[in-house]
Amino acid sequence: MSRGACIRIVEVGPRDGLQNEVAVLPPATRIALIKALAAAGLTSIEAGSFVSPKLVPQLADTAQVLAGLVDCTNLRLPVLVPNAQGLAAAIAAGAREIAIFASASETFSQHNIRRSIDESLTEYRHVAADALAAGIKVRGYVSCVLGCPYEGKIAPSTVVRVATDLIAMGCAEVSLGDTIGIGTPDIACALVRDVAAEIGVGRVALHFHDTYGQALANVLACLDLGVSTIDAAVAGLGGCPFAPASGGNLATEDLVYMLDGLGLPTGIALDRLISAGEMACQVLGASSHSRAARALRRHHV
Amino acid sequence: MSRGACIRIVEVGPRDGLQNEVAVLPPATRIALIKALAAAGLTSIEAGSFVSPKLVPQLADTAQVLAGLVDCTNLRLPVLVPNAQGLAAAIAAGAREIAIFASASETFSQHNIRRSIDESLTEYRHVAADALAAGIKVRGYVSCVLGCPYEGKIAPSTVVRVATDLIAMGCAEVSLGDTIGIGTPDIACALVRDVAAEIGVGRVALHFHDTYGQALANVLACLDLGVSTIDAAVAGLGGCPFAPASGGNLATEDLVYMLDGLGLPTGIALDRLISAGEMACQVLGASSHSRAARALRRHHV
Repeated sequence: MSRGACIRIVEVGPRDGLQNEVAVLPPATRIALIKALAAAGLTSIEAGSFVSPKLVPQLADTAQVLAGLVDCTNLRLPVLVPNAQGLAAAIAAGAREIAIFASASETFSQHNIRRSIDESLTEYRHVAADALAAGIKVRGYVSCVLGCPYEGKIAPSTVVRVATDLIAMGCAEVSLGDTIGIGTPDIACALVRDVAAEIGVGRVALHFHDTYGQALANVLACLDLGVSTIDAAVAGLGGCPFAPASGGNLATEDLVYMLDGLGLPTGIALDRLISAGEMACQVLGASSHSRAARALRRHHV
Repeated sequence: MSRGACIRIVEVGPRDGLQNEVAVLPPATRIALIKALAAAGLTSIEAGSFVSPKLVPQLADTAQVLAGLVDCTNLRLPVLVPNAQGLAAAIAAGAREIAIFASASETFSQHNIRRSIDESLTEYRHVAADALAAGIKVRGYVSCVLGCPYEGKIAPSTVVRVATDLIAMGCAEVSLGDTIGIGTPDIACALVRDVAAEIGVGRVALHFHDTYGQALANVLACLDLGVSTIDAAVAGLGGCPFAPASGGNLATEDLVYMLDGLGLPTGIALDRLISAGEMACQVLGASSHSRAARALRRHHV
């Protein structure tokens, strides 16, 4: 296979990023961040979550965030939905796209969403059907695809099974999450090849965390398989709050810098993206995990 | 081309790393660090420099460092030598390997070593001849191979010319330095292919800084060309002291983590390597730039 002609980046900073930060940002600030990201050229931006605000206070009031973005009809703004109740809230808030999140690890599934993999897929089947019936697009996540904090190695066949099931229930794409960032390029490639063989490479998104510094190398390797959708978080938001320099998600700026260098169009203006990341870091009181952002800003100081 | 069967890592932390840190470590501490790196399995460790201690106080007394390592006959311990005077000092200190450093940028050459590229190559020709006559191995560096802080783009043909000249004067290998870390994978690959076409891929070493977060991806891409020698610095030493999280050299730990994952033998025990990096960070009062090191240590806490 060979590289796609252009790359779609799904910006997950305002959801996956923020939910792993200590600071809690009010809806107005999250709206401003999403608008800054859109101004940089991002067209798919995870806007929040309808998981219980008791569990994830950082993403409370996602309905207000969506309300503030109601005019942004050109944006895809998926919101995380854990169950039928979450879907009802998302529909009430005018969501046009949701994301459902399964795991490839039985133990992680129990810890994270208190259901077995199969129980979660059964529930998501109803959620997806109802969403599609309401004209809402559905994105699927699979976590722990390259390893689990509890179980260690995860069988690729489990990832393939979960991904295939998510597509069968109507997900437009499946985002493969290396939740703990332990994957390396050949292993990541082998998994993506297995999944793509079942669902098609065009339905595969990469969601690699940079915990071990491997995320960009893993993305590079998978680009050569034809993957064209990549999740990333501006400023690498979502680092473990107890290890400030640890890095969380792959930093969108580092990814865009590489894709620019590879001549793969993303439609994103790196300078504006860096500005959006600076805004995020400022309101969070955090420092950026993006090396490209820090390097480019140093140049201009 | 395809990947080499095993990878030789040249640990440059005790030289390229330390010379870009604010703290100045006494020879005994540098000896202890080099011994810790050797205990991790590294067999090529840059031990210091015979550049004037007025210019690089961090590497003063490299003769004492070599004296403290006189029993380590199994190690390759290259030291940087700028000219005939430096070579004399290196020989007097018992160096068995030196490194000479040219640039692919005329302006950088003038700023860094106050000579034109051709003037430096003329001087190095004598240095290399004298070193070889004394039974000393010679390694060549080319800086700014993917870009220059003063000139911007650098013609690959200049890199090829300088690298070829270094090999012609007797260098066993040439290390291609992306001094400012701005390269991306395809560009890095194209350059390495050009250079390898002239000097052979077995004589090419990669020396990529991680300023823009691209170093590991660039290495990955070049591995597939058959490159088997990679420079890296434990803990990513050498970050700009004025931008603490900026990253300097590619962190050896992140590289070893990836190579382990790729199944490419390095002979290095990652856990011991991380310990050596912790020692370095402790004596420097710095925090590690290696994400793999931070992630693995977090697991064990």
